Formats: sequence, structure tokens, C-alpha cells
Amino acid sequence: MTLPNRPRYAARLNAFKRGKEGVAGMIARAGEVGGLSAADLNYPDHFEGTTPAALSRLLADQGLALNGLALRYYTEAGFKLGAFTHPDRTVRRAAIDLTKRGMDALAEMGGSVMTLWMGQDGFDYSFQADYAAMWDDTLAAMAEVCDHNPVLDVSIEYKPNEPRAHAVMPDMATTLLALRDLGRANAGVTLDFCHMLFAGEMPARSAMLAARYSRILGVHLNDGYGKRDDGLIAGTVHPVQTVELFVALEKIGYDGVIYFDTFPDHGGLDPVHEARANVALTEKLRTLAQGLVGHDALAAAMARQDAAASSRIIAGALYGL
Amino acid sequence: MTLPNRPRYAARLNAFKRGKEGVAGMIARAGEVGGLSAADLNYPDHFEGTTPAALSRLLADQGLALNGLALRYYTEAGFKLGAFTHPDRTVRRAAIDLTKRGMDALAEMGGSVMTLWMGQDGFDYSFQADYAAMWDDTLAAMAEVCDHNPVLDVSIEYKPNEPRAHAVMPDMATTLLALRDLGRANAGVTLDFCHMLFAGEMPARSAMLAARYSRILGVHLNDGYGKRDDGLIAGTVHPVQTVELFVALEKIGYDGVIYFDTFPDHGGLDPVHEARANVALTEKLRTLAQGLVGHDALAAAMARQDAAASSRIIAGALYGL
Amino acid sequence: MTLPNRPRYAARLNAFKRGKEGVAGMIARAGEVGGLSAADLNYPDHFEGTTPAALSRLLADQGLALNGLALRYYTEAGFKLGAFTHPDRTVRRAAIDLTKRGMDALAEMGGSVMTLWMGQDGFDYSFQADYAAMWDDTLAAMAEVCDHNPVLDVSIEYKPNEPRAHAVMPDMATTLLALRDLGRANAGVTLDFCHMLFAGEMPARSAMLAARYSRILGVHLNDGYGKRDDGLIAGTVHPVQTVELFVALEKIGYDGVIYFDTFPDHGGLDPVHEARANVALTEKLRTLAQGLVGHDALAAAMARQDAAASSRIIAGALYGL
Amino acid sequence: MTLPNRPRYAARLNAFKRGKEGVAGMIARAGEVGGLSAADLNYPDHFEGTTPAALSRLLADQGLALNGLALRYYTEAGFKLGAFTHPDRTVRRAAIDLTKRGMDALAEMGGSVMTLWMGQDGFDYSFQADYAAMWDDTLAAMAEVCDHNPVLDVSIEYKPNEPRAHAVMPDMATTLLALRDLGRANAGVTLDFCHMLFAGEMPARSAMLAARYSRILGVHLNDGYGKRDDGLIAGTVHPVQTVELFVALEKIGYDGVIYFDTFPDHGGLDPVHEARANVALTEKLRTLAQGLVGHDALAAAMARQDAAASSRIIAGALYGL
Repeated sequence: MTLPNRPRYAARLNAFKRGKEGVAGMIARAGEVGGLSAADLNYPDHFEGTTPAALSRLLADQGLALNGLALRYYTEAGFKLGAFTHPDRTVRRAAIDLTKRGMDALAEMGGSVMTLWMGQDGFDYSFQADYAAMWDDTLAAMAEVCDHNPVLDVSIEYKPNEPRAHAVMPDMATTLLALRDLGRANAGVTLDFCHMLFAGEMPARSAMLAARYSRILGVHLNDGYGKRDDGLIAGTVHPVQTVELFVALEKIGYDGVIYFDTFPDHGGLDPVHEARANVALTEKLRTLAQGLVGHDALAAAMARQDAAASSRIIAGALYGL
Repeated sequence: MTLPNRPRYAARLNAFKRGKEGVAGMIARAGEVGGLSAADLNYPDHFEGTTPAALSRLLADQGLALNGLALRYYTEAGFKLGAFTHPDRTVRRAAIDLTKRGMDALAEMGGSVMTLWMGQDGFDYSFQADYAAMWDDTLAAMAEVCDHNPVLDVSIEYKPNEPRAHAVMPDMATTLLALRDLGRANAGVTLDFCHMLFAGEMPARSAMLAARYSRILGVHLNDGYGKRDDGLIAGTVHPVQTVELFVALEKIGYDGVIYFDTFPDHGGLDPVHEARANVALTEKLRTLAQGLVGHDALAAAMARQDAAASSRIIAGALYGL
Repeated sequence: MTLPNRPRYAARLNAFKRGKEGVAGMIARAGEVGGLSAADLNYPDHFEGTTPAALSRLLADQGLALNGLALRYYTEAGFKLGAFTHPDRTVRRAAIDLTKRGMDALAEMGGSVMTLWMGQDGFDYSFQADYAAMWDDTLAAMAEVCDHNPVLDVSIEYKPNEPRAHAVMPDMATTLLALRDLGRANAGVTLDFCHMLFAGEMPARSAMLAARYSRILGVHLNDGYGKRDDGLIAGTVHPVQTVELFVALEKIGYDGVIYFDTFPDHGGLDPVHEARANVALTEKLRTLAQGLVGHDALAAAMARQDAAASSRIIAGALYGL
Repeated sequence: MTLPNRPRYAARLNAFKRGKEGVAGMIARAGEVGGLSAADLNYPDHFEGTTPAALSRLLADQGLALNGLALRYYTEAGFKLGAFTHPDRTVRRAAIDLTKRGMDALAEMGGSVMTLWMGQDGFDYSFQADYAAMWDDTLAAMAEVCDHNPVLDVSIEYKPNEPRAHAVMPDMATTLLALRDLGRANAGVTLDFCHMLFAGEMPARSAMLAARYSRILGVHLNDGYGKRDDGLIAGTVHPVQTVELFVALEKIGYDGVIYFDTFPDHGGLDPVHEARANVALTEKLRTLAQGLVGHDALAAAMARQDAAASSRIIAGALYGL
């Protein structure tokens, strides 16, 4: 039931981690899933004790393309108080340089997207930080990083909170405000379904704003209850919002990877089975979404905001109402 | 597709209100829907300028049975600061007496359930109220009301907030705690889907607690995003949680009315069309739920908490995965 | 304890409403408060059966200046499904024309700020509306309204939800994104404390973004629990965040009115006493904030994100720690 | 400024952890704080490679009494899918036995309270678990654990979610419902300020319910924004709710330990400085609370739910209004 000319699937490698094993085992297990055709690697941790070339071989052995890299500013590495917004200039410099090295590794491996989740860049208390300085520092760092290699795309993955109580990049619109100010053609945004939900956003509407004011460089699929980053199997809680997002992505023409950013470890699920459930549900919901693109009666109902009519059409498509 | 021996449907009469018209027009329009077989009346407002007997005739003309009455402690009637927990003893007495008169009207009409939503019984500020006194007053009032006519059932419809910032009866467990202390056989609880969601509850699990420690005397169906009382068409946001609730109700043996507590007025929807959408989606999801009762593979997956397996079974039932 | 050269206070007139009385009584009662020096009027409802000149006299009689007008797109007037984003072009036109007439009344009375809360402009369901069209319609309407009289300021008051489940202008950053695209010098944004809280924002940080990318044209003070628009007395729940906002406004140089957007009616409070509590708490917290502007030890603690130190400084200022 | 005959202070030992060091270093650093007089140890991790007697000596060396033990059902130990509610009977047995061994260690050290946070006992998905079986398993395990040593107290620390998306014991009332059913005199409940906030509770009101239907066996102080377990310094966000809780505890006669359950590590704060800020703010707010117990004007305002008056009294006590 694979759809032609449509996004490929990738999954969070750390979901496949067993105990203290290294990246090779995770890649092998991602290969076992069957429906995945790409993977993201974390920089720097997945590169420890190995080389970009060796990692490329491990991926190729499993038939996996490299989607991109995800920078991780780990607290143990000194980024507890922030990366691009750390109060100490030396640490900010270290964060920028680490990101550049990550981009070099990405280029060496032939990948195209560097995803930045600046999880430590935020604040916990009122009167803890100078908000204006944090904003300036973020923009300056982003500019330097984007200019390091304009051939590569750099994507911001926003998230309302955790680990910090408030993030510098908490939601779609704040991210777009920064991206417009930044003015770099190789910068864009990553949509994470759970992050959108607990930012109080309607995912398809955030996709519209992203496409209008920037570029969608990644889509992280998962699901949850809108209160935190639950990381559940895609489509298990908000199937209608998931389908609406697929319709929006189809209209926008997004053809990048669909990346499953789920946490099978939380619920003690077998990661290979869980990944297969992600693929199966997503394929099904995407196929249903396909039938809603260019659906005249649906468009007519929406043109008059008639949710009684559109909800029946959607229920018809989903449940055969 | 009506299921045999299963709950009938009712809808919120005020959803059908046009301008300043009276209850007769609302009942007529509820009759237009086609799939409704019962109605709840609000006491005292729906009884103004008419009689229980006249109301019974209006309902019968539309083929609607009376499900029950819902007490409304309107702020204009002096209940702004509370009904059963109002700081003034005279107002508390008025609230209790109003409730008793409502029960008399209910008995006269041959109905069985008086639903109490004590929306004004709460507090907005720290240091505004004596929490222990409010609790005592609620229990004393409930005891008096229940004892007024032990043949009738009295049901508490809890809700986290609104109009007050915090309610005395905000969630299922607090309500059950009160009901156990109350110790009246004719008291019970009403499940409102949106209220459960924004109380942070999983509806099917709340149904289990209700059945274990009290009795489910009413089910209000609707949907929303878990942040407030959205009152959307049933099944439009959380179809899986709705199906899970139906399975739980089936196992519990609930055979009361399913009441659609939705707000078509918020989104400017035609209330008759909206009510038909409620009935259609609910019938469909209940039929799907029926197939999951006694489903061996599902039971086996749940017995090992294997959500990867159960989610595929659910997706199979819902979307034909 | 009035601070020199600092904002004056205004209050929500409808908070003073008794029964079905008109605007004259509300203005008289606002005058009773003692600490208020300005008022906002709602357009069109406060203008019904009277004239701008008569309203100006009523305000002057109480020593109240006109701060500005607040447009109300009432559902009874046909705006249930939206004002600037209503699916029907005729209704959108009516909303724009109503706003222009409001601006004319504002100009006639010598006021300067028209505040727009587009509460109906939103959506309740997935697949209910065309998000891109809503965005376009909002920008086009805003442009026309701003250009109607460039001497007047037009301010957007954002709010996450209610009455619609999702608003077109839900938070600060979305509003700023629209304002930047709009590109009108007389457009800006209103900060409402409760709206910021339940949008998940830190108020002082939102003030920074507003000042950087647009203009702060109004400040609505109140308090709440971050889950809905509670409308409690200013400073009663989040005194530290309120003080931090005052410090930010001082640095930004905001010298407009502080408007108390509170709901004494919800908790059954006497509106005159409640307004006096608003003024008293605000004066106190603003005085405390004054002592934190240019506080070297605080600045030093914040420069290293040392919240243990800054929290003790704040507690020292507030509680005499 | 220590208050006579009042609770002593303890702090979360792991907050003092540096790198991979053991419990000795943490205890030493807790001793450095100066204002702490007690500590809780985690079982089994703090007991690894050492003995109860050795731990008692380490505590005594720092002048710290043992407050109690906190059971930790670590995921690495096989409790990923649950402890008392794990689907596998063998794992449930292991969890019960681990708890009993912890109680034996507690008894050996002369402590009195075993705190159980059943963080893994929950569910992530609809149709993942049998809610009734989970409830039964929890009650059965609690009964066995309580009966293991009736001299020791066993306290449930509830929390809405995390790591699981929904917890079996998510809030005060659910916990009290279980405790009443359990019917063990040595069982009770722990109040955690952040957990209460993100369960949507008003802490002082939860304390009232706890005292009425069970026993308060522990108080965990911290603060946050009501959306997750932020673990901020006590009193930094909700000083009024903190003071109200202190007044409630005073009236209840709680004389147990105040335990600071904060996460200085999240915001990169020095744990010793942060602990001192916890002690300083708490002492200050408790002193202010002391002045509100038996405050006639406050009691009179509360007796009429007059929040305008009570808010001014509170602001007078806190800020010298």
C-alpha cells in the first residue's frame, strides 16, 4: 500500500536502543522494521567512536538513506543552562562550533538537513534571564550556522518546554518570527505533531503558516494528549488532525521524509513492532487523506464552515459512515 | 443501523433555541432531528409560564420521552456565589428548596433522574472560601435532596471549572469521594465526555471507577481538545477514546440515555444538522465498539499492555487497516 | 502612592453593570472607584441610544478620560461564524464597515486606540475552515481598517480560544507575524495578562517580542491560573510575573493606560471594591517593580541565569526577605 | 527566624549529585546547606554498595535525621510497564518484595515513612490496559505492603503523568478513594505542590480533603506553572497558594517534615545555593502564614467569600500593602 511519489519513512534511532549498546545495533534493528527507508543520526553521540563513512555503510547495509542529522546539546557537555543562549559566551561559541562540525559531518555523508532542537535554550524562572539578549544570541548563532554551509538546510524544531520550563522557540509563530528576521534561505522549520499539540496548535494550520512564511524541512509524526511530549504511535489519539495534516502537506507539496518521533520505551513496547504500527497506521491515514484532496463536497462544506457536513464526510472516509 | 436493546439518544434542548423563543419551539426542533427519542428539561427555566403536564404533552407530540431534569442555579436568581455552598445560609436553603421543587416536577412527569451541575459551587481565589465548610454544606444539601424522594435518582455532573475558576466537584474521584461519604442509594454520577477530558481523565477509566464506587446515572457525549468544555460533535476529535468508553459502558451494562451535550451555537452550526451528525457518528462508533467487546486478540494484547498490537486492532476496526 | 509620569488606570466598564442598566450607570460607578482616570467604551453596544458627544460628557463628569474603544463583533449581529474571517463575504464587509464606524466615533471623541478582539474569528473543528483564506481575509481587513484613519492606532488583542475552540490570533507571535506582514505603522498589539498565561507565555518575554517587532498599544491587567481567561484581581496569583511585566514595560517606556480586564461578576464581588483592590495591588507591585529597574545585583544574577540569587532578591523586594 | 515547634526541612538528595558520585557526597553537600535537618533516601539505589547502618552514620555526621525512604521502581529493573500493576504477575511480586525490603531497611534505620511514587503504574494508550485489574492489583499490593509492618507509615505520592501518559494514582481524590477502600491505618498521602498544581488542584483544598479522609504523611514543596513537574524553588511562582497551604497545614496540625522536591539541575543552579533559597523563602512565607492563622478580618472576609477584601489582607501581609 505504499503511495507513489510520496514521503519516505524514518524513525528515531534511539527508540531501538538496547541497554548501553552503540549505534550499529540500533541501525540494524531499524532495518528489521521493513517499512523504513531513511534514518536520522544524532550528532555528536551517534558519531562517537566511529566515522561518518562507517555510519554511511551501516545505513546502506540496511537499505536506509540518511535523512539528516539532529544536533544534541547535551547537559553533560556543559549546555545545561543553554546552547545558543548560554550566559557564558564561551559556551555559546562551543555550541555554534559543535553545530558546524555536525554540518560538516552531514555534508560528508551526503545528507541535506540539520535539525536543531535547542532544548536547553530557555528559562525556568521570572527574573532568570534577559529575554532580549537570548533572542539576539539565538539569531546571531543561527545566522552563523546557516552561513557555514548554505548548501545544507538548517531546521528549527520548536517545543513549548522540557527540559526548561519555557523555551526560546516554543511554537510555530515564534519560530517563524525568528526565521523571517534571520532571512536565510537555507533555514526552515520542523513540524513535530506532539509539540504542535501541546503548544495548543492545530497541526494543519501550523503547516499553512510554515509554508507561507518559511519552508517545512521536516515532519515528525507521533501522537499524544496535548499536555506534554507523549510520543505515542502516530494516529492513535488524533487521527482526524493527522489526516488533516496529511491533506495540508499534500497541498503544500511536501515531499520530505516522515519521521516517527515516538517513545516505545515509555510504554515498554517492542520498538520494531511499534515502528511497524507507525508505518501501518500512517500509510492507512495517508491513503484516506489522499481521497480528501480535491474532494468537492468537503471543499464546499469548508467554504461555508459547515462542520456538521464536513465531519460526516470525514467520518465517511475514515469509518465508512 | 439502530442497535437493539441499547441506549436511546437525547440532546440538549437549548442547542435548538432560536432567539428568545420558548421551550415549545426547541422541543419541536428536537423532534425534527429524527434520531432522538428522549429529552432533558432544565429546571426551572423550561417550566416558566407552563406546567409539567403541558411539557409532557409537547414531548409526547414529538415522540420524545422525558429522560430527566437538569437543575440550573442561575446567577440572576442569586446563586452567583454558590448554590449548596453559598456563604449565606438563606441562599443555600433556597438552592435546596429549588432542587426539591424540581424533583417534584420530575416525579409529576414520570421522569427518573435529576441531574445536578453545581457550576456556581466553587471558588476563584486562594483565601476566598472555607473549603471544609463548602464540603460539609455540599454533603448536607445532597443528603437532604436525596432524601426528599428516594424513588428518584440524583446525579452529580462534575466539571473542573467555569464559571468558577475551581469547582467543588471538579472530577470523577472527588465526586465519588463525596458520594461514598453521602451514602445514599439514589445518588450517582453523570459522565460528560468533555468534562472528563479537561479534568485530565481517560473516559473509560473514569467509567470503571464510577461503576465500582457508585452508579452511572447519565452519559453526556460531545468532544473537544481537553482544555475547556468545547462541546463539539461526538467522536470528531477523540474517536478512539469514545469507542473505548462505549466498550466500557457495554461491559458495565449501562442502558440509560446517551445525551448529546454539544454547542452547535458556538460554531454557528444548524442545530438539527448538528444533532443528526451526533447521532450518525455515535451509531457508527457504537457499532464498531460492539465488535470489540469480547474480542479475544484485543483482550490478549491488553493483558500484556501491548499497545502496538491493540492499536493495530483498533485501527483495523475503525479504518479497515 | 501614585507614581509620577506613569500609566493611568482604566477598568472594564461592563464589570460595573447592574441588571439591564445602560452605560451611564456603569460610568458613574467607575467614577466611584476613585483611582481610575480613564475608561474604554465598547462599540457598538455602549453607543446604542446615545451619541459620542453625550458619552464624552458622561466620562468628563466622572473625571475619566477616554482611553479608546473596543470593537465587539456580537454573535447576535450575525458574527457567530466570524467577523473578518466569516465565510460570507457580505458579513466580512459588515464587520469591516462596523469597525470603520467605530473608528469614526473614536475620532469624534478624541480617543486614540481602537482595540480589536476578533473572538469569533477562529474554528472549532479540523476540516471546518480554510486556514489560508482566513489568514488572507484577516490581513486584508486589517489593512483596510488601518488605512481608514492612519491617525488612529489599531490594536489586536489576541486570545487562545473562547468562544471558538481555536482563534486565528491565538498568541503574541502569531499576532506579530500578521502585523509584520501587514506593515501598517498604526497597527499594534494589546497585552492581556490572562490571555498570555493561558497561551503559555511568560508576560515579560511577550512584552519584549511586542516591543521589538511592533508596538504595545494597550495593557490589560488581571490574573488567573493559566488554563482559561479567569479575570481575577491583578497580582493575586502571579505577583512575580506581574512585577516582571512592570519592569519590562518600564524598560520599554510604555506610558499608556493600564486597563483592568477583570470579572468581579464571576465571583460575585462588589465591582467598586474589586476595582479598588486592582488599583491598590497594582500600585504596590508597580512601586516594588520600580525598585528593581537598574538593580545591579539583580542584573548580575540574571546575566549568569542564577535564579537562586535572583529569586532571593525578588523575595527581598516583595516580602522583605 | 526558625519557627518553634514547626516542621523541619529536608531536601531531595539527588539534587546534590555530581556526575556519577555516590550517596556520601550528596549527603555531605546536603549538610553544607545549613538549614536542613532531615533527609530522605531512595531505595534501592542509595543503598547500593553500602548498608543501612553506614547510611545512618553518614546522615548523623551531617546532623541530618532520616525522614523516610522513597521507593524507586526503576525501569532498568524491569518496571517499565508497571510495578504494582505490571501485567506480569512475577514483576508485580518483585515490586511488592522490593517494597518490603525497603521497609525493612527503613525500620532498621529507625525511620517512619515509606513514600511510594508508583510512576510506572499507568497507561499511555486507550485499549492498552484493563483499568479494573490495575486498580485491583494496586489495592492488593498496597494492602500487602501496609500489612508487612504496621508500625511504619506508607504514603502514596500521586502525580498526574510522567513517565506514563496517565497514572493510576493521578490526583488527591483518586488516591483518597483508594486509601478509603484499602482501609489501612498506616497508609496515607504525600502532598507534592507541583503535582497538585498540574493536577489542577488548589493545594490548600487538597490538604483539607487529605486530612478529612486520610492522613498527610509528607509535604513536598516546590513550584511551577501548573503544566508539568517543574520543580522550581518553593514560593517563586505561587507564593499566595504556598501561604494558603501553610495556613491549612497549621490548622490541620501537620508537624512532619517539609521536603524540598526541586530540580536545581534543570536550570543549572548550584544545588546548595538553591536549597538555601528554598529554606529562606519557605521560612519567610511560613512566618507570614503564621500571622494569618486566627486573623479575624480574614476569616470574616472568607465567611462571605469576599475575595476583594481577603486579597487586600493577603497583599498587606505579603507586600506590606
